[in-house]
Amino acid sequence: MSLPRIAIDAMGGDEGVRVMVEGAALARRSHDNFKFLLVGDQAQIEAALEAHPGMRDASEILHCDDVISGDEQPSKAIRRAKTTSMGLAVNAVKAGAAGAAVSAGNTGALMAMSKIALRTMPGIDRPALAAILPTLEPHDVVMLDLGANTEADARNLVQYAVMGAAYSRIVTGFEKPKVRLLNIGTEEIKGTGALRDAAALLTQACARDEGGLALDFDGFVESDKINRGETHVVVTDGFSGNIALKAIEGSARFVTDLLKHAFASSIRSKVGFLVSRPATELLRHHLDPNNHNGAVFLGLNGVVVKSHGSATAKGVANAVTVAARLLEDKLTQRIAYDLSELGEAAFKKNGSGSPDSAGEAAA
Amino acid sequence: MSLPRIAIDAMGGDEGVRVMVEGAALARRSHDNFKFLLVGDQAQIEAALEAHPGMRDASEILHCDDVISGDEQPSKAIRRAKTTSMGLAVNAVKAGAAGAAVSAGNTGALMAMSKIALRTMPGIDRPALAAILPTLEPHDVVMLDLGANTEADARNLVQYAVMGAAYSRIVTGFEKPKVRLLNIGTEEIKGTGALRDAAALLTQACARDEGGLALDFDGFVESDKINRGETHVVVTDGFSGNIALKAIEGSARFVTDLLKHAFASSIRSKVGFLVSRPATELLRHHLDPNNHNGAVFLGLNGVVVKSHGSATAKGVANAVTVAARLLEDKLTQRIAYDLSELGEAAFKKNGSGSPDSAGEAAA
Repeated sequence: MSLPRIAIDAMGGDEGVRVMVEGAALARRSHDNFKFLLVGDQAQIEAALEAHPGMRDASEILHCDDVISGDEQPSKAIRRAKTTSMGLAVNAVKAGAAGAAVSAGNTGALMAMSKIALRTMPGIDRPALAAILPTLEPHDVVMLDLGANTEADARNLVQYAVMGAAYSRIVTGFEKPKVRLLNIGTEEIKGTGALRDAAALLTQACARDEGGLALDFDGFVESDKINRGETHVVVTDGFSGNIALKAIEGSARFVTDLLKHAFASSIRSKVGFLVSRPATELLRHHLDPNNHNGAVFLGLNGVVVKSHGSATAKGVANAVTVAARLLEDKLTQRIAYDLSELGEAAFKKNGSGSPDSAGEAAA
Repeated sequence: MSLPRIAIDAMGGDEGVRVMVEGAALARRSHDNFKFLLVGDQAQIEAALEAHPGMRDASEILHCDDVISGDEQPSKAIRRAKTTSMGLAVNAVKAGAAGAAVSAGNTGALMAMSKIALRTMPGIDRPALAAILPTLEPHDVVMLDLGANTEADARNLVQYAVMGAAYSRIVTGFEKPKVRLLNIGTEEIKGTGALRDAAALLTQACARDEGGLALDFDGFVESDKINRGETHVVVTDGFSGNIALKAIEGSARFVTDLLKHAFASSIRSKVGFLVSRPATELLRHHLDPNNHNGAVFLGLNGVVVKSHGSATAKGVANAVTVAARLLEDKLTQRIAYDLSELGEAAFKKNGSGSPDSAGEAAA
């Protein structure tokens, strides 16, 4: 089966065209059915492609001069959707010229452009930004929303749960991913009204005998348990999700910085470091964000993947592979199907659990 | 100067009476002016005191049979304020029989009992739970609110800033601690209305030529920077603060667990671990929560310190020392003074920045 091609914003990201092209080529090494639309400065792209002849044949170049800068306001950036590499990559998905877009540029601008160009799916009020985090178990955990929206009501959270489960199913292979809502305690009375209402809606929807949601709602989770691997999906509003994600990243960096200082503190420690290098390399590999690169905007009519601005070629390859897997496994159709199940299971069959009343209770 | 004595809930915490008494004795070793009111089962306390004769002379015992359990609902627990070790310790502060209370028991129950017994200070709408976290710099960072209240408006956040600065001044010695609001970005337009309004109020209050706040408001901080040591105080609502704190703790544990696995993965790594043990011990010391034990309820008419349920005697000693320092440095008077400055600087002299309108804008 031929895969729809992937549009790459070749100009976004701190590392330049070379890394984006090299990353795409790297992804293609294990998936030679990948095809690309490379958007950006033609001369720079051609130069980067010289090192990857197989990639050259699998790619079309769409030239443009204009680039969205990293610190640009999204509200300004969207005016240049038709002239910039980011805007043209996203619009290629809208026009059907590509199945997915990958960019390492300005997150806010990418989100705004994607929303305008692709619109939210039927049944989704707001898209969400989802990422994959490592756990102590062999499977990763999907967390969303990471900041697409500052606030979320119960209805938004339920939709995030459905979208996160669809994403998790694709990356973990579990047919019924375990989903929990991020909260400041696990007792039913904890947290905001929106969280409690979302928990009630999800419990109802999962308790149905037949049909029902293809996920296993498992209550609340506290943020010190995100990395334990006890759940496949962690659902939260964009503010808390962003706080949790960055706190995890910052704390991991803090510990590894302390470790570096400690290893450098004496000759004995330096020797110990050299001897135990395979162990610390294992740690470094596990924590390397490039191994989990590729945050996804869920809930749009099309697949858009955000690569870290500072990702290496390996990181970009991961982001491209994520985009390809979401295309292959028809992410958007899966979400649409689950939403229709949800419509029957939770919203329509229960007056008090209707979307409107849930939204009001959370407001 | 004789220090008011410290009431110790000897029965709270997972480790029992012995650890609470030993912790208090340990704190007294470097501060022999500390005096205690030990609240709980007299026979158990007497038995624990046998190992610490100097401590015996500095302590009075207040006997009671009843104990608040770790999983008890705060709403139930408060009914037994007059019969339980936790309730009696807090009430000793109210009655003036002690200057501060320390408990390792149920956080929610302690918070509820403290609020009822001690009431919030004049000028404070809601108390906040504050903790000290390690940073890469020599000074620690104070973070609040960690969950005393689920939601906070702009006025609450400004009051948290004043209380956090007063606390930081005592633990770091900086006269004008640097204060930042936790947000999902550092640009002015980021985050909720409450955060933006609080930032505007604090900016105004700090910009005055004379008088004004004894703190340096420095804008927003993202949660990956909490441990960098760039700021002395991080102010946030209780929901986000709890999420950030637990994410930091969970991520640090995740990394050290990975490290343990990695070191155990081969004989070479095990040897390396033994050689580099001084380095890993240094890391362990830095991350040991006992070295930062003692969360404080700020904004009450009295000092209440929460010790970790699983704290060792060293941890309890730290919590007791925190309580003593807050008494010595007259925390509540300092907060009251700063609040009166704030009243002049921000709320009263500016119509649009008045408490009421700030509260409404954030709602």
